[in-house]
Amino acid sequence: MTDTATAARPKIVIIGAGFGGLAAAREFAGKPVDVTLIDKRNYHLFQPLLYQVATADLSPADIAWPIRSIFRDAANIRVVLGKVTGIDEASQSVETSEGPVPYDHLIIANGAGNAYFGHDDWPVHAPGLKTVVDATTVRRNILLAFERAETAADEAERHRQLTFVIIGGGPTGVEMAGAIAELARVALARDFRQIDPRAANVVLVEGGPRILPALSDDLSAYARQALEKLGVEVHTGTMVENIDAEGVTVGGARIPAATVIWGAGVGVHGTAEWLDTKPERGGRIAVGADLTLPDHPEIRVIGDAAAVAWPQGPGENATVPGIAPAAKQEGKYVAKAILATISGKPSKPFKYRHAGNLATIGRHSAVVDLDRFKLTGWPAWWFWGLAHIYFLIGVRAASLVLLQWFWTYLTRRKGARLITGVTTEAHPVRESETKR
Amino acid sequence: MTDTATAARPKIVIIGAGFGGLAAAREFAGKPVDVTLIDKRNYHLFQPLLYQVATADLSPADIAWPIRSIFRDAANIRVVLGKVTGIDEASQSVETSEGPVPYDHLIIANGAGNAYFGHDDWPVHAPGLKTVVDATTVRRNILLAFERAETAADEAERHRQLTFVIIGGGPTGVEMAGAIAELARVALARDFRQIDPRAANVVLVEGGPRILPALSDDLSAYARQALEKLGVEVHTGTMVENIDAEGVTVGGARIPAATVIWGAGVGVHGTAEWLDTKPERGGRIAVGADLTLPDHPEIRVIGDAAAVAWPQGPGENATVPGIAPAAKQEGKYVAKAILATISGKPSKPFKYRHAGNLATIGRHSAVVDLDRFKLTGWPAWWFWGLAHIYFLIGVRAASLVLLQWFWTYLTRRKGARLITGVTTEAHPVRESETKR
Repeated sequence: MTDTATAARPKIVIIGAGFGGLAAAREFAGKPVDVTLIDKRNYHLFQPLLYQVATADLSPADIAWPIRSIFRDAANIRVVLGKVTGIDEASQSVETSEGPVPYDHLIIANGAGNAYFGHDDWPVHAPGLKTVVDATTVRRNILLAFERAETAADEAERHRQLTFVIIGGGPTGVEMAGAIAELARVALARDFRQIDPRAANVVLVEGGPRILPALSDDLSAYARQALEKLGVEVHTGTMVENIDAEGVTVGGARIPAATVIWGAGVGVHGTAEWLDTKPERGGRIAVGADLTLPDHPEIRVIGDAAAVAWPQGPGENATVPGIAPAAKQEGKYVAKAILATISGKPSKPFKYRHAGNLATIGRHSAVVDLDRFKLTGWPAWWFWGLAHIYFLIGVRAASLVLLQWFWTYLTRRKGARLITGVTTEAHPVRESETKR
Repeated sequence: MTDTATAARPKIVIIGAGFGGLAAAREFAGKPVDVTLIDKRNYHLFQPLLYQVATADLSPADIAWPIRSIFRDAANIRVVLGKVTGIDEASQSVETSEGPVPYDHLIIANGAGNAYFGHDDWPVHAPGLKTVVDATTVRRNILLAFERAETAADEAERHRQLTFVIIGGGPTGVEMAGAIAELARVALARDFRQIDPRAANVVLVEGGPRILPALSDDLSAYARQALEKLGVEVHTGTMVENIDAEGVTVGGARIPAATVIWGAGVGVHGTAEWLDTKPERGGRIAVGADLTLPDHPEIRVIGDAAAVAWPQGPGENATVPGIAPAAKQEGKYVAKAILATISGKPSKPFKYRHAGNLATIGRHSAVVDLDRFKLTGWPAWWFWGLAHIYFLIGVRAASLVLLQWFWTYLTRRKGARLITGVTTEAHPVRESETKR
């Protein structure tokens, strides 16, 4: 490229540095385009392992990497730490807290957050697991519950503190339930004097007829049995009716519980408002077979933010699932499609290749449901572990994360069992109290 | 011990699980006493490495360990997560948020926090480095300053964002100044497009005539030169007069600076009020040669909370310095003294053995001032590193921390460069915003 050509290089703007946005940006590295990657956080988060931060196996920095570091050698990729406030489709500009960012091609990959189906009072009692702060909040809640059980005044309160309810039987809920059960039964077993952490009650509540609905019937049944073997109480076909500071009401029954974790729903926040359009279910934006917006071939939506038809998928009107491999495929596809468009070449429609589904159940078991084979038990756990290490290497050399895992695995201790931050109510544990 | 003897076992209460409290508790493990260890946090913090959390080299969990884990095999040691609100000396009981805890012997080891000499408005602008939240706050401030410089509207604001002022030329201030200079010049050097992080201004302000006053003149001068070689501007004999949101006023001159870090003073909070006594300078409690309170042989004060005479120390009325080795010696001494008292045996007065002083200056240099020898440059750095790894092993097998260090050292990248938590003002980076 000559210097004079630089001014005329197409401007690509990517909103969001999750799996989709990152995959797209990677394709553009070193290409004759100017890319601006906008995210409200300074790091890419490896969300599939976030539950291990919540259960004190990993530290946030083990699964999050500064976006600037990832692209430090890509001179044509600029990173903006800022919040998107709107999109001006007429003038082709993204409005952000750091000023307007003009685009020739826009990729919207802002992902999904937790969704509580209109219950605005539930998030404070039942945090979800989408962000680092979510995970450290859940970690604090879980660890404080054991502490409060240790000093509880009566048996009812002790039982309430030792009851953990997880709402939602998808992979997040299953993995959290298994990990909390193991935390109580192994890592904390001998740490208290007044309580036996092994007496903890872990309850998993799923509204549908079975947990892990994306997996086959037999794997779903296996997962349920494996959880029950760990001591988890599994309720299916049970809807959550209320969540408050004292516990939950599910299927007409009251469960006093100090810790409630939300894994029942995600939703896309903001995208429809930016585009001034009516979203699909969960706030997702409907896109065409080339992942562009109707009437806006210069705007593409990918990842959790998009509703992409999946003709080969299960059931009628199936859409591509909100998982990392799908977002990565879409990110790569749209980047290639934009580069083709710039070169005046056509692109084929996007075709999703579904690799399969998997979920861990504690430290020794998992279920893996691939096209070609199924696995359960510890072979599935190792498959799951190696698959995640492989994906992690894509972001950063994974040796340290691997070591941290083995360390925890070998010592059966939890390396990140810190209660940090400011707690709610008048509880004594306030980090900031040393500064008066 | 027979079972009937259990009820009559002496009750030891230790307030604080820092270096002093931990060393004391360790001595009691397995002995015929019942120990209650009270701390407002659930972890022991290895404070000497806290500045590496602030400069994104380490994660909090790398230098903090759950107290319960440390004592899980010591059945006679009970851990209480709670806040001390008072001490009833007449009835021999510690009042806590979790209820009263009676004692036969009390060890007060609650340490020191930041002290701002009565300037109540300074902490918010110039956080110190005593807690995990302090360190992650400083980390966020430093990293956000570079982000804001990247999008700054004018040159003056860019310069202000790239100016880092550290108040206090003790080991904390020197280590922070060196680490920030290296963060800017090495780790971040190529991560931005609009700014050159190497243009950052790091300013160290010391009120006394020289930095590292506890070290010899020549080592102090060496440290100053080493810092200046890293690009740090060192001001000695300069008092800080004002700190606000826009910068600092030092020695009559105004320095616009977005990031100010406090390393100028620590103070003991609460202890004098609990004991209803008049404290020494910095809130410390004067104790006798056996570290007991006057008129209260059953109450001992150790570590930063105590003012312990040091006849061999520098100058008149010298007191034992507020460093980890001193707290550990005192903790071990009082535990042995209490066990001797219980057995009806006498104890010798406490005698502080001063091993020396040391401080790092960035990644390649340090100063070490021991009785028997002095070191500077990289031999000092390696001495400092190995000494800390040795001390860490005392708390937990240090292999992972060691690996993390080498990883950072080899890759020259920062592994923990996360901006987390809720920021001040209306800045876009709010973790909690995904939950609406």
